[in-house]
Order: sequence, then C-alpha cells, then structure tokens
Amino acid sequence: MKFGGTSVATVERIRQAARHVKREVDAGNQVTVVVSAMSGKTNELVGWVNESSLLHDAREYDAVVASGEQVTAGLMAIVLSDMGISSRSFAGWQVPILTDDAHGAARITDIQADSLVSRMNEGVVPVVTGFQGISSKGRITTLGRGGSDTSAVAVAAAVKADRCDIYTDVDGVYTTDPRIVPKARRMNKIAFEEMLEMASLGAKVLMIRSVELAMAQKVRLVVRSTFDDPDAPQIAPDGTPGIPGTLVCDEEEIMEKQIVSGVTLAKAEAKITLRDVKDKPGVAAAIFGALADESIVVDMIVQNISDDGQFTDITFTVPDSEFDKAIRTLKAAGDRIEYAKISGSKGGAKISVVGVGMRSHAGVASSMFKALADKGINIQLITTSEIKTSVLIDDQYAELAVRALHTYYGLDKEDA
Amino acid sequence: MKFGGTSVATVERIRQAARHVKREVDAGNQVTVVVSAMSGKTNELVGWVNESSLLHDAREYDAVVASGEQVTAGLMAIVLSDMGISSRSFAGWQVPILTDDAHGAARITDIQADSLVSRMNEGVVPVVTGFQGISSKGRITTLGRGGSDTSAVAVAAAVKADRCDIYTDVDGVYTTDPRIVPKARRMNKIAFEEMLEMASLGAKVLMIRSVELAMAQKVRLVVRSTFDDPDAPQIAPDGTPGIPGTLVCDEEEIMEKQIVSGVTLAKAEAKITLRDVKDKPGVAAAIFGALADESIVVDMIVQNISDDGQFTDITFTVPDSEFDKAIRTLKAAGDRIEYAKISGSKGGAKISVVGVGMRSHAGVASSMFKALADKGINIQLITTSEIKTSVLIDDQYAELAVRALHTYYGLDKEDA
Repeated sequence: MKFGGTSVATVERIRQAARHVKREVDAGNQVTVVVSAMSGKTNELVGWVNESSLLHDAREYDAVVASGEQVTAGLMAIVLSDMGISSRSFAGWQVPILTDDAHGAARITDIQADSLVSRMNEGVVPVVTGFQGISSKGRITTLGRGGSDTSAVAVAAAVKADRCDIYTDVDGVYTTDPRIVPKARRMNKIAFEEMLEMASLGAKVLMIRSVELAMAQKVRLVVRSTFDDPDAPQIAPDGTPGIPGTLVCDEEEIMEKQIVSGVTLAKAEAKITLRDVKDKPGVAAAIFGALADESIVVDMIVQNISDDGQFTDITFTVPDSEFDKAIRTLKAAGDRIEYAKISGSKGGAKISVVGVGMRSHAGVASSMFKALADKGINIQLITTSEIKTSVLIDDQYAELAVRALHTYYGLDKEDA
Repeated sequence: MKFGGTSVATVERIRQAARHVKREVDAGNQVTVVVSAMSGKTNELVGWVNESSLLHDAREYDAVVASGEQVTAGLMAIVLSDMGISSRSFAGWQVPILTDDAHGAARITDIQADSLVSRMNEGVVPVVTGFQGISSKGRITTLGRGGSDTSAVAVAAAVKADRCDIYTDVDGVYTTDPRIVPKARRMNKIAFEEMLEMASLGAKVLMIRSVELAMAQKVRLVVRSTFDDPDAPQIAPDGTPGIPGTLVCDEEEIMEKQIVSGVTLAKAEAKITLRDVKDKPGVAAAIFGALADESIVVDMIVQNISDDGQFTDITFTVPDSEFDKAIRTLKAAGDRIEYAKISGSKGGAKISVVGVGMRSHAGVASSMFKALADKGINIQLITTSEIKTSVLIDDQYAELAVRALHTYYGLDKEDA
C-alpha cells in the first residue's frame, strides 16, 4: 500500500491513511506500506538546497531531500502502532533498497526483501520510505520526483505481493476528464499499455516509470483514494472487499475489452510546419536534434511521403509556450536544415482515443474522424499507434470533441 | 567545529557558519564539522510525533527526529563546496557513530573514525550529523536534546582533535550574567570542573554531559559565537589566530588561577523545612525518594546535626513552580516520614561563587558571607562543595548580591 504526499500531508491524514492499512490487516492480508514525504516538504528541502548552491553535489541533494520520507515513515509506524497494529519503519538503506549511483535519478537495482517478508510473517507491518535507496558506495540516493510510485512497485515485486495499491487523491482512472464530461466514469480495469498511453497523454494519476515497471514485473496496480471512507462496505475492482478503485493489470485479465477505453485531451499545443524539406537521410534527426538541444519537448510528429522523392513537408507540435523559441531555433539552424518555408500557429488541442481493443478492431480511426466530422470539427493532424489514435483540432472545439467521442464510443453508459 | 541550532537556522546562517570553517581550513587546519538541526525543526518533528501518539515507540521517535540533522549536514556540505572547500556529509550511521539502544537518550559506545580521518587526510571536510548514532540492531538512535554537543566532543576525541570548537550564539563563558552586571567579562579560560558547576547553576552555554565527556576524554573545548565576524583578525583564547571565545580545559592548563572565577544566580527557588525529623538511617532517602517519584527536582539540601541524636531539621529547595506540589507530596507521605512540622516559602535566590582556586585558598566561604553582610543581606541557607559555595537569600537582594560579589572577588577588572 503506497500513500502519496497529499495522503500524508498532516498527522491527521496519516491517521486516515492508516485506517486503510488497518482494514487490509483486519481482512487477513499481509501488508508493507510505502510512503512519500508530507506534501510540500520535498519542495521546502529542494528550496534550501538550491539556496545553498545552484551547483550542488547531487549526493548531498539526495542526503537532504531523502529526509522527508524518513519523517513520514516513522510517523506512520507510530500511528499504526497506536491503532494496535505492530509496525516499524525502514529507511531505504535499512531494507536495503539498492540502486545505481545516478544520484537524483537513481534506478533500483535490487531489493533484499528478506527483512520485509520476515517482518510480515511475524505480523508486523513494515513502513518503507519511498523515493530512495542506497548506492553501492553507501550513499543515500533518490529516484527523482514522483519516484515513490516506482519504489512501491519495486517493493511489491520484491515481496511477491498480490497487489500494489497506490493511494492518492483521486479514486481511480477515468474514461476522460470529469470536469469536461460529467458522465465520465471510473474504469474498473485498465491494461498496462492503455495506462501508459493515458499517462503520457495527461491523465496524471501514476508516474509512467512505475507503470512500465509494473508491466515488466507483472505487478497488479490498484489506484485508490485515501480520502474514501476506509470502512465503507464496498467491492474492490478485483472482486475483493474494500474501497473502489481502478485495477491496472495485464491485458489478459480484462475479459470485456472495450474498443476504446478512454478519451484524453491535451490543450495549448502549437503546430509548426516546415515546407519543402530536402528529403534525405538525417533530415528529421537534424530538425529534432536542434529542438532537443534547446530542451523543447516535441509531441506529435507527422511526415508525409513526398510527391517526387525530392522534397517533403514535416509538421510537429510543441507546447504553446515553446512555440516562439522553436521557430527561432529552426530559423537559426537554417544553414543545417534546408527548407522552403516555416509556418505554424498556437492554440491547438490534441484529442486521443485509447484502447487495447483497437488491435483487433479495424476502422477505429475512421469512426473517430466521422464522429468529429458529424460535429463539424476539422482535423488538422493525425497520428496513430497500435492502441491509440490522436488528432489535432482547433482549441475551441476541444471539449465538444471529447464529449462527442465519449458518447460515440459508449463510455457514458452507467454499466459499461 | 560544532554549530548549534541557532547557528544553522537558515541557509544564510549556514553560510556564515561555513565562513568560520573556511578560516580554519585556510589556516591549514584539518576540520570535521558537527551540526545540529535547524533551530525549531526538532520541535516541529517532536510535535508531529506527539500528535501521532503520546505513547510512541522510541525507535520511531528517533527515526523521525534524527532527520533534522541530516538536512543540515547536507546543506552545510553543499555550502562548503560552494566556497571551494571539498566536503561531504555523514549521517551518524554512515560514520558510524555506535550507541547503545537506549532510544531517545542513547550513549555513544564507539566511533569508528577511520572514514573521517582518511577524508581529512584527503583534504575533505566531513560534516557529521550531531545528536544521533546507530544501535547494534541497525536502528537510528538519538542522544537526547542538546546531544549535539556530546556528539561533537565524542567525534573530537575519536579523531584525536587538538580542539573542539562549540559555536553558539554567545561568544564565551562570562564571569556572571552581563544583564545583571554590565562589567561581567568573558573568561579566556575556565577549568572543566568550574564549567560543570557553572553549567548546572544556570549558565546554560554547554550541555553538562558534553563537558563531563570532554573532561574524561581530555578534549579541549572552545565556546565561540557564530555571529562574530569570521575574518576579524583576533587572537583565540589559546593564543592561536581566530575569533575570541572561552577555552574550557584541564585545570593544569590555567596558569593564573582565580580564587573565584564566576558568580552565578538562580532565581525562583522555594525553600521547604521539615522540623524534628526522626534522625535515623533512611529518612533522607524516604523524603527525597517521595519527591523524585513525583519528578520534583530538588536543588540545595541542608541537614544539621541534631542536638540529641533523636531529631533533626532538614531544609531543601525546589523551583517555586513545584513548591505546592512538593508540600502536598510530603504531607501525603506523612505516614512514612515522621516529622513535627513542615514549613517553607517561595521567592528565594541562590547565589554561588565558583572557582578551582578555592581548593588551595581557605576562607572563601567566610569572605563571601562577609561581603554579603556588608550589604545587609541575610543568608538563609548555605551549601558548599570543593570548588563552589552557594547561599540562599531573599529574591529582592539577588542582583545586589551578584554585583557585590563580582566586585569583591576582583572580576570587574578589565585585565583579569
């Protein structure tokens, strides 16, 4: 059971989180808890580090910043004991959670979980600091921001857990943004691949890296809300008693595959088109290399086959805020990249439909285009992957498009 | 070099502290730094622990509370590096500083200082977390409040340091409280024994335990102020260049011994007298055991020889705030303690003169009584030790008495 920063922001909230742990223990489950730092604490610590020196040793950054989880782990162990649940805290180095020495963005190399397993067998709930580990040189490392999700998945894999429950401030993954579509529903199950596409498209519930790791290690994730009543008699998505949530699992475990599971929206996307680019090897690398050098993140990329094999058009999108910088960068690189004309505009919206069912269903893309055409919405760009189709449209039609697609693919239905 | 909580309360203050380190390094000294938590942070952490549960596991208390020093150590290492001084932080468990497992009040059993010494030989300044260590069971321990002074002395002993400089918010130990006697002077040197008497009498500059350890391990202490200009060209008390301060050292090192080194004052002392107590073995133990059971701290104790070997009078002092409770406690214990009458009053002041010179000079006590008599001050109680004489007087004469004694023993002199 992993609790994020907002779930442990105060002692009162830690107590609320602990009630969820108690429910699972009372149900006969063995539990290991992984905690983040109290909300805001990591920022405070990072602020002090930056105030100390902008050019700081990453090992000292880690020593300072990792203290936040140490505090929460101890407090959680105390609160659990206060509720009559035997518990003890483990700092990353005490487990130990071994990492490489890429301080600030370390990767877990191994977790020696014997100490955790033997504690659980004794009826103790170990509380492990998320986000951190220890390098082979004995220094404290951190996994980078949001790394507590990754810690939780890695610990779950190491102790061979049946489930890894990620408690956060939302009660699951929705078919689309409920602020746009009031009929948006919490999904009971979603495949890892879908979750990856949803996450990268803006449904920021789980860190991508933790989902990748869960998929690789076959760790079943459940997204749940700490703020739900811990003792409400309900059924969890996998059929076990407990609070609701969304199970993120292997595709095989999802019997009734929806063609489209969710609709996502990313606004403020600017498109840029380079016309008559010389069609030769390395041209794309030159364009996007120049942008990457300026740390400009490119999202959609579309290149059409050229008519004559000589020249082609390349269109891509960047955040609106990066539009001017991207134009300047490409104009400055004009000597290395041959093109006739550069043009573009801000204010696009990217709409995507995601679903593992697409693999076995032809015609999803065309049905999507038709649904949008029925509303009179013009499509500017199209990209597709195996389980996702994305289009760029004018910003002002964004909410209309999301609602139309949500209805069109049957996601409004109460019992879907 | 040890820096206390107020000396590292902000990043700006850590930078000020680091300038003192730089001065010592630039002078060719090898330095290990020991730091406390930022002022207020330990209280914040303790507050959270108590909010979590008043009956908490001391091991978890330690895991939480020890995080404060971890933050300061990392920040100090970053600031030092920023000034061009190679540095790295060490948590207690990384040194390691080994302790027993009396969590919350652990005692250091051993410091394996090889890692610190080899770093210093490489030109690196190790920054060690004060106040904490690791038990033989691999759990983080803390030494109790103010334990960072003790950590500093223990580390100094382990690395065989020439000096242990304790940086705080005062620039040394004074002959008496400068708020009462403007002519109070900072002492250049004071013997360990004197410091112990001064500390326990209210001159709260150093933790008693750290002075005891320094005396046992023969670690020379210097009390200095972080807020003095680190680069002012002055002479330290032991003759080396540096900022001023007070050297706490072995009596042998003090050539010109003052008969009286300092005058201390403790106000709000209540006296309680038990009359006609049955004079038999165990009676004192019964009285003070009853008070100790109620956590009442007793200061002065005076018992006169009885006239007839049958009954005696016992008088002692407690803080004014404990007076009523002490009276209640003794009345309730009346069946176990036989006495004729209990009486007492609040509003006393204890004045003490301290000095190792007393050992070889007779008549200090009588000269003290005469000095007070000259001012018409009545003495209510007298206690003496080898290097200290204390009297209890009426509160309203307290400042007058301190000034009179300070002048009488020649402590006002500029060049003393």
